[in-house]
Amino acid sequence: MAELGTLVLLRHGQSTWNAENLFTGWVDVPLSELGESEARRGGELLAESGLLPDVAHTSLLRRAISTANLALDVADRHWIEVRRDWRLNERHYGALQGKNKKQTLEEFGEEQFMLWRRSFDTPPPPIEPGSEFSQDTDVRYADLGDEAPLTECLKDVVARMLPYWESAIVPDLRAGRNVLVAAHGNSLRALVKHLDGISDDGIAGLNIPTGIPLRYDLGEDLKPLNPGGTYLDPDAAAQAAAAVAKQGR
Amino acid sequence: MAELGTLVLLRHGQSTWNAENLFTGWVDVPLSELGESEARRGGELLAESGLLPDVAHTSLLRRAISTANLALDVADRHWIEVRRDWRLNERHYGALQGKNKKQTLEEFGEEQFMLWRRSFDTPPPPIEPGSEFSQDTDVRYADLGDEAPLTECLKDVVARMLPYWESAIVPDLRAGRNVLVAAHGNSLRALVKHLDGISDDGIAGLNIPTGIPLRYDLGEDLKPLNPGGTYLDPDAAAQAAAAVAKQGR
Repeated sequence: MAELGTLVLLRHGQSTWNAENLFTGWVDVPLSELGESEARRGGELLAESGLLPDVAHTSLLRRAISTANLALDVADRHWIEVRRDWRLNERHYGALQGKNKKQTLEEFGEEQFMLWRRSFDTPPPPIEPGSEFSQDTDVRYADLGDEAPLTECLKDVVARMLPYWESAIVPDLRAGRNVLVAAHGNSLRALVKHLDGISDDGIAGLNIPTGIPLRYDLGEDLKPLNPGGTYLDPDAAAQAAAAVAKQGR
Repeated sequence: MAELGTLVLLRHGQSTWNAENLFTGWVDVPLSELGESEARRGGELLAESGLLPDVAHTSLLRRAISTANLALDVADRHWIEVRRDWRLNERHYGALQGKNKKQTLEEFGEEQFMLWRRSFDTPPPPIEPGSEFSQDTDVRYADLGDEAPLTECLKDVVARMLPYWESAIVPDLRAGRNVLVAAHGNSLRALVKHLDGISDDGIAGLNIPTGIPLRYDLGEDLKPLNPGGTYLDPDAAAQAAAAVAKQGR
């Protein structure tokens, strides 16, 4: 049997709304300058590792698409096939989209805030159709009909992401192609939860740093031969994890 | 019968080698800063005209890929499907790749120089495999085998471009999708020659300006309803044409 291709996950770099501490979700904001340089650094890591993608999968959101474009250009793989799907989008943050995280924390309190941010199955309130940060008139989602979410918890993201994993990404891997998935904090957490068999509670503690390619070598059964994956820059990943842990305190 | 989608051709903006007056061909140089701003201007024209692509086709060369990425991002169509193919590449310039145009003119004389640049069926001498600006070890062309050119005249470009037009672009148009083709001076001249039924001699006088989207409305027979196409910025296109005519004197 042919060996599977290698899977590489890449979380987009900082967006302008990350920098402003706003809930983003499906709002289609661009990368900040820092985010652009993170994306290019991701491309350098791909090139240095010799781990060259044959195909890229991205969400429909600009910050993931630009991250893939910049990283692939630096790695001299700008010319590979690319596929995009809404199923790789960030978690829809419902009525929180566009809201300041600090103000939301103060308004609703720590417990409710953390439940919305990190619980597996509690979505924020749904977004009001027609409101400023709603996507209900966005042509790219016009064909989704009832599938278009108005809010999501991570459980919802797992449910809508997995069909794309199975139908689009796995066939590429089985064809022996190296696959880059350029996506978001929560769509990648959903994928990692599935790959590593992480429990519904356990996934709360897992963060994926931005801009550092995360490599998975998969067996025939699609289980990781390197559980948890391997960051192409382990020191930077460890630093990012430490910074997140400090934030939590 | 469903109406055909609209075809939009976009020649990439200035590359670093355009700026240095070097023959480029298949050498994969980036856009210059001017070229990047031309690409963004192309995207503004798409957005202003309301002519929004549903799918983009690009060559395998960075200057066309970046032009599409930048233009589509500005037009808020960064998320559309994209397909790439070597058949949309610039004409392979053979042994002239990497050479200065002025020096080549002085070395070989005006007649030979213009024959290589503008004759329909006289290719430059083939490039030496293994030489600095050859693509014979470039992985993106590894599967082409004997089809990989070592030099091309425009006639060769027509011959290798048309199968992609027929098999990949026409089906998108027939499905009613607006199609953006982001490519090169000569691959687009080859396509325009075919669309407008321009003679082998007549095509010598036709130049397509950079960064200005060129719209074709096609009938069921794939013949242009607007022969010669319509530039989305006709004044800029006329100025560019005048500048080229002046160069020739």
